[in-house]
Amino acid sequence: MSHSTRCAACKSLRRRCPRDCILAPYFPSNDPQRFSSVHKIFGASNISKILQQLPVQERAKAADCMSFEATSRIQDPVYGCVRIISQLQQQLLITQRELVMTQAQLAFYYAQQQ
Amino acid sequence: MSHSTRCAACKSLRRRCPRDCILAPYFPSNDPQRFSSVHKIFGASNISKILQQLPVQERAKAADCMSFEATSRIQDPVYGCVRIISQLQQQLLITQRELVMTQAQLAFYYAQQQ
Repeated sequence: MSHSTRCAACKSLRRRCPRDCILAPYFPSNDPQRFSSVHKIFGASNISKILQQLPVQERAKAADCMSFEATSRIQDPVYGCVRIISQLQQQLLITQRELVMTQAQLAFYYAQQQ
Repeated sequence: MSHSTRCAACKSLRRRCPRDCILAPYFPSNDPQRFSSVHKIFGASNISKILQQLPVQERAKAADCMSFEATSRIQDPVYGCVRIISQLQQQLLITQRELVMTQAQLAFYYAQQQ
């Protein structure tokens, strides 16, 4: 038996959407762009394989993360979401340096007081 | 004409490696694991498409970033490299809070001195 409405994946791939469709819970028909992005970057077959290897309760999170990665790569075809990692590392380094300097100033004032 | 040695991609896909192979410069034969990972996650066809759309001088960086994303997803099939983003955001938040507190303490000592 199939769904009365096909999921975004089955609709895009022009196939019947079975009741136990592995993609249906994570790629609803009302958000075709979400499937289109992951399909373009990972391919439907790879997404299905990755989801199939996971326990059911972890699949939604995996689908969300793959959607995020795919959207990032479409927006930024060179770096994808790795650019965000690089920016956060840079920001963290700057903040850590500022913290060390502020702590040093504070230590100086403590020492002066005693 | 083809290469005397096929690149890791053409070797894995059991095809002739043409002189102008789009994957050869970024997936050398001495690192079959690198191609195997991106092939498993993105698929050879998607990687080729993404690289083809980019200017030649940006392709190496894109291949490196896709290799990193693929390795991260193989090691962590739920979160992939999105886990690193989440951890860095958390670490940045903690460091920013500590900085704000240290700056406040410093401001207090400055005020006391005057």
